[in-house]
Amino acid sequence: MKRDIDRWMQEEEVDVLLVTGAGFDNPAMVYLTGGAHLTDADLFKKRGEPAVLFHGAMEREEAARTGLKTRCFTEFPLDTFLKEAHGDQIRAKVLLYCAIFRSLEINSGRVALYGQMDAGTAFAVFSGLQQELPGITLIGYKLNGVLLQAMATKDSDEVERIRAVGRLTTEVVAKTADYLTHQQVKDEMLFHADGQPVTLGEVKRKIDLWLSERGLINPEGTIFSMGHDAGVPHSTGTDSDVLRLGVPIVYDIFPCEAGGGYFHDFTRTWCLGYAPDETLAVYQDVLKVLKTLEQEIEPNTPFNRYHLQTCEMFEAMGHPTIFKNPAETNGFVHGLGHGVGLQIHELPFYRASIKGENELLPGSVIAVEPGLYYPEKNIGVRLENTYWINPDGKLEVLVEYPLDLVLPMQN
Amino acid sequence: MKRDIDRWMQEEEVDVLLVTGAGFDNPAMVYLTGGAHLTDADLFKKRGEPAVLFHGAMEREEAARTGLKTRCFTEFPLDTFLKEAHGDQIRAKVLLYCAIFRSLEINSGRVALYGQMDAGTAFAVFSGLQQELPGITLIGYKLNGVLLQAMATKDSDEVERIRAVGRLTTEVVAKTADYLTHQQVKDEMLFHADGQPVTLGEVKRKIDLWLSERGLINPEGTIFSMGHDAGVPHSTGTDSDVLRLGVPIVYDIFPCEAGGGYFHDFTRTWCLGYAPDETLAVYQDVLKVLKTLEQEIEPNTPFNRYHLQTCEMFEAMGHPTIFKNPAETNGFVHGLGHGVGLQIHELPFYRASIKGENELLPGSVIAVEPGLYYPEKNIGVRLENTYWINPDGKLEVLVEYPLDLVLPMQN
Repeated sequence: MKRDIDRWMQEEEVDVLLVTGAGFDNPAMVYLTGGAHLTDADLFKKRGEPAVLFHGAMEREEAARTGLKTRCFTEFPLDTFLKEAHGDQIRAKVLLYCAIFRSLEINSGRVALYGQMDAGTAFAVFSGLQQELPGITLIGYKLNGVLLQAMATKDSDEVERIRAVGRLTTEVVAKTADYLTHQQVKDEMLFHADGQPVTLGEVKRKIDLWLSERGLINPEGTIFSMGHDAGVPHSTGTDSDVLRLGVPIVYDIFPCEAGGGYFHDFTRTWCLGYAPDETLAVYQDVLKVLKTLEQEIEPNTPFNRYHLQTCEMFEAMGHPTIFKNPAETNGFVHGLGHGVGLQIHELPFYRASIKGENELLPGSVIAVEPGLYYPEKNIGVRLENTYWINPDGKLEVLVEYPLDLVLPMQN
Repeated sequence: MKRDIDRWMQEEEVDVLLVTGAGFDNPAMVYLTGGAHLTDADLFKKRGEPAVLFHGAMEREEAARTGLKTRCFTEFPLDTFLKEAHGDQIRAKVLLYCAIFRSLEINSGRVALYGQMDAGTAFAVFSGLQQELPGITLIGYKLNGVLLQAMATKDSDEVERIRAVGRLTTEVVAKTADYLTHQQVKDEMLFHADGQPVTLGEVKRKIDLWLSERGLINPEGTIFSMGHDAGVPHSTGTDSDVLRLGVPIVYDIFPCEAGGGYFHDFTRTWCLGYAPDETLAVYQDVLKVLKTLEQEIEPNTPFNRYHLQTCEMFEAMGHPTIFKNPAETNGFVHGLGHGVGLQIHELPFYRASIKGENELLPGSVIAVEPGLYYPEKNIGVRLENTYWINPDGKLEVLVEYPLDLVLPMQN
């Protein structure tokens, strides 16, 4: 949680956080600014001190709205540094940072870097800065470290935002079910009243619209895939496919608040009209695993324990898993889940962790998503909810929604 | 243009491009893959050779659809590297890259890095890799360099996509004008038929929806700001403000194709009902500058020339500009424009350039956006079109739309 940032900085011996980039679509910056329409900013936070936000002159009012202490880049005119750097943009940025570091009296210690930007720019600028400031150690993390560890547990405001996104998400899911089940059927395929076939692409565009109407965006798309595509977990589906009865549809929807806010992750698998026996059997195995996990997941345990348990349960039911063969493409072929917050995938992860950062803790918000895939049989089934481990240590689903496989047609 | 990539690699003595990150919302990756739903990928392109795309096992079909040569990360199981790195994610990624470099026989030369990712991760991973591979020089650029130089001129397919986004954008702009002018007016304020006031926030949500209906997203928001806020160029506006007659509204809309495709950048300034004389005079000055630039912009000239000319013209009209005072907040306070493509701001820029990369060339697609701002007087006026310098060297506006300041009320 945010209040733990200084504690995590102490624990990891980090003296300063430097978060760079835009104020939106940039989880670390959104976390610390509350989200602001800043196209380019730098936030410095020393351990035990409030953050300082550097912003462009034209964005002074957006910056002020964050409530943070602000300073304007006009104090450090880029043109001066560009001249000194003979037009070299990288070098100019290094000189600019040197000036800001001096001005903030950051002369030693460990500075942890965050923020979405171009990989090459980050490498070149911060390597240059490291050379220029030998008394300072610049550090970076991947998937973990100070800020992401703070973000891994949520306070109740954050949980309510994730729940609110979930409520809107399930409204869209319900609208999708309603839309599909009110179409005409001919030769097991869905048609509009005017005789045009109902395609996956058309349904996906409607989903986008229904999300937008609710102030949500889906920056990473929506998986709405059928048959063979449903059997390949990350396939987003083939837009021209016509919806058919009795073929499993994997509907994995993971929108966030516009501007790059909190996500919610949710999956159902549907068969329109009826489900063939083999699909139903696969579905029942997935459902059983989900229900078992809902009963058994406890706080202060590694998430990986439940991933391994899921592999064991599926293997006992006769399904292959990636536990036995990491390149397996049949059966259970992905991880059990991940943390959900300002990033769709964040701590805690289902992977084993040596440093213990993948523990389930009170405040963890996690997506749990068992699934089984048989692409050659045109079968894929995944069920997923976003859960919270509440302050009492109980696993609580953030939004209730029916888990039914079969959606009876209403026409 | 894409066909120039090898030439730019030669010119900058770059032997390999390494583009990392997601297949979407990641301009360099979208440019080279055509956009693909890949959550994590690495693309390697040696000079004179086709690109190779590394992807996760679950995304094999999405990767295959790009038409590129593909290889799967299962060849390089992360768990092995994580074990070797004692659970250190950064070190594991370094070892993974070492294995891929060996496998691709990249043993020497200059490797340019691209792709959106976390700044700290980029710094840590690529610093580690640089140490591990002393025979190789990793390099990064900021706003320029090989790939961004190729992207700075567009082929006709790209121009048609930017134009198509522009057509949809102006449809939304026309709908917005129509919506506003059909509201009720009382005491110079806009009201719905039910007596509720019409707020900026409500109009912005409608704009989002109309964009979404057309398959567009606005990842960086929309500026729809009025009065004082209109006088601060990057202010996005205050949602609770009620629309008023006679107060300038700056409407700057810059959406892109969903998934992080091509952008279009477009601004109009409107006064509902009537315009006060002072606002009208400011508007006429901005319009005059835009019309002059449309006549005078020529290919094979630095963009900066027209920025300076704009400053001169505005100063001759009696307006302050940032040319005289970089911290100026009245008058013309921002740059004249920027290239538009898979990034809303890209080469060529209006800034002076020592290396000459900010030249206007046949194939350049640029936003030209003169504006004048007087926040204390509640006045801000900006007019902006996206233009193409066509193969004949002529500046061509991509989409025609009226430049009128006053929108007469229709009720």
